[in-house]
Order: sequence, then C-alpha cells, then structure tokens
Amino acid sequence: MTNIPTIDLLIRHLQRVPYLASKNIYKVASYFLYRSHADIDQLCSVLKQVKEKMHPCSTCYTWCEQGTACMYCTDIKRDKTILCVVEQWYDLLTIERTGGYNGQYHVLTGLICPLEGIGPEELTIYPLIARVNQENIKEVILTMPQTPEGEATVAYITKKLKSSGVLVTCLARGIPVGSQLEFVDRLTVYKALTERRPI
Amino acid sequence: MTNIPTIDLLIRHLQRVPYLASKNIYKVASYFLYRSHADIDQLCSVLKQVKEKMHPCSTCYTWCEQGTACMYCTDIKRDKTILCVVEQWYDLLTIERTGGYNGQYHVLTGLICPLEGIGPEELTIYPLIARVNQENIKEVILTMPQTPEGEATVAYITKKLKSSGVLVTCLARGIPVGSQLEFVDRLTVYKALTERRPI
Repeated sequence: MTNIPTIDLLIRHLQRVPYLASKNIYKVASYFLYRSHADIDQLCSVLKQVKEKMHPCSTCYTWCEQGTACMYCTDIKRDKTILCVVEQWYDLLTIERTGGYNGQYHVLTGLICPLEGIGPEELTIYPLIARVNQENIKEVILTMPQTPEGEATVAYITKKLKSSGVLVTCLARGIPVGSQLEFVDRLTVYKALTERRPI
Repeated sequence: MTNIPTIDLLIRHLQRVPYLASKNIYKVASYFLYRSHADIDQLCSVLKQVKEKMHPCSTCYTWCEQGTACMYCTDIKRDKTILCVVEQWYDLLTIERTGGYNGQYHVLTGLICPLEGIGPEELTIYPLIARVNQENIKEVILTMPQTPEGEATVAYITKKLKSSGVLVTCLARGIPVGSQLEFVDRLTVYKALTERRPI
C-alpha cells in the first residue's frame, strides 16, 4: 500500500478484478492516474450502462440488451431442435465464432461444485430441464470442461434428461488440429485412440 | 466482439488497460457484469476521486493528495542532502518498502526514448537539474533499469550534473540475495565478479 488513501482505495478495487496479476496492480493504477478526466468519465458511464441495460435472456440466460429474449432465441433462422449447453456466456461466443453451429443455446452460469456450495439450484439447470421437456428439442450438446466440476454437472444433467428421451451428446475429444502427437498429453491421445473413426 | 453494443463498448475499454491479457478480457467483462450496482458505483466514485484529488508534487513529481508537496518532501525527519531518482512513482514505493532509504525522491515519469519521441523535456529532468543546483544536495542515486532507454537517461542526467560537482551513484549490480550462481544470467555474474568487494 502507498499511504495515500485515494490510491490505496483504487488499488483495493483493482485487487478484486480477476486475471490482474498482483505484481502489475501498481502499473494498472498508474494507467488510470494518467488517463484524462474524459476517459475516466467514459469508462464510468460504460460500466453503469452495463449494469443498467444488460440482463439475462429469460429463456437461455445469455446476456441481452433489448427486450427479454436474446438475439439467438429470437432468430427464426436458427434450428429450434438442437440445444448447446455452455458454462458461461463467453463460451457461447467461442462456439459462435466457429460458424459451425446454428441451434439454440443455454447458459448454465457456472458448474456444480459442492465444496463452494454451488448446487443445481444455484445454476440454470432446472430451467434447462423444463425447456427440454416443453420445447421440441431433439439433441442437447454438453460443452462443459473435463474437470471434476464439469463432469459432475454433465452427470447430473444427463441423469435428469434420461426420462425425456432426448439425445445427449458431448464435444469430441482428440488431437487438436495442427498439433503434433508428441506434444499432446497422454490422456488426450488415449481418448483419440479409443474414439478413432473411419476416414 | 459479441454483437451486443454495451458489452462491446466495455470490452473496448478493457482492451486499453495494460497488463490485462486479451484471452482474459471476456472473463473480466463477466466480472463487471455480475458485480452489484453498488460495487460499480463505488468503483466509479473511486476512479473519479483519483482524477479529482491526485496531483503531482510540485517538487519531486510523485503523486500527492493534499497540498502541493508530498509526504516525502514535507517530512522533516528525512535527509535533505541525498536524492533518489526513480522512473515511476511505484518504483519509489519499492525503494520505500526496503526501509533502507531516508532521503528525498525525484520521479522522472518515464525514460528518454527518441524512437517514441520522448526527450528530456517530456520528463522531469530539467526540474531535477534545477533542484540539484538550488538545494543542498550531496548525492544523487540513479535507479533506472539497464535498458537502452534507462542507460540513455542515466548518461544524459550524469552529463548534465557534472558541472554541479554532486556525487552521482547507481544501484549495485550483482547476484540477487538467495539466488544460486547457476540460475543467474552471464552478464550479472560478470558484473558481480568485476565489482567484487572485500568482506
């Protein structure tokens, strides 16, 4: 800390921001100290706009700005029979960027993690089950990571969807495109081998 | 980009913040999306306070909150005959944290870099020369890094101070405390060897 109350306050706020290394906090504080008044006003106005305008879509829980439904749910060109379940809204952007998916989405807003007190009711799993049962959905794609929390969430959703008779799939595991075999970890090579497919 | 204007605006602002890796920008945006209104208001108020209250000390150019002189310049217990020149205000904090220095400071606010159009007049070098000539200073410690810009700044200041007869020193170069010889780079070992001292 600097013994200058206002700078210390700023540093405490910056320390809470994720993915900002503590060794760089003073340099980031310096960035704000040297900004113009206008720049700071603009940033504050954007932050406030974000809080005022953004709200989760009432169907898929991604962020939307206008109305209660997002641009993916209201797009009539998208396939209504296929649903891609993502952990966070930025995972949705990653899927969109591939250009290879034209179905619906559902944002979980997290993963089941009993150690942190996050159960299915803290996430949007119950609305997901309700959607699958009510809408004419034929396939649910689960894109959660292969971590203990991700696997637990996949297992829970799969169990809950069993009675609905919908096809539940997950992303293919294998060698990343352009990667060489020697640089890929053992488990991935094993998965790629056991899930090999005819050319 | 997300195609959601308000989030895109926030992301453009975050992209300008230094030391924030672009792969983490969406996660940081997510952090702000999930903050409460009160949290965002507090952060904005702190950012605005920083711009309103903070100004450079009229003598040493470090940031100060009250009056025109900083706490280092007004502290009567500090040695007025020794002056430590640092590149940025956070370098001053690093020196202070050692507890081994009790003199005055001078913040350059940057380094000479002709390629980026930063000459001595963009920095606080002329006020530094004036200080040394007017005040009763016996030693000037230069703490700039050993980079082309750092060396150029050291050379310029040393030349300008020559006529004043003040002792100009730099930080000792050598093996970091606790480090093993095999992990230290060649140039540092060379410096440590040529500048060896009796025990």
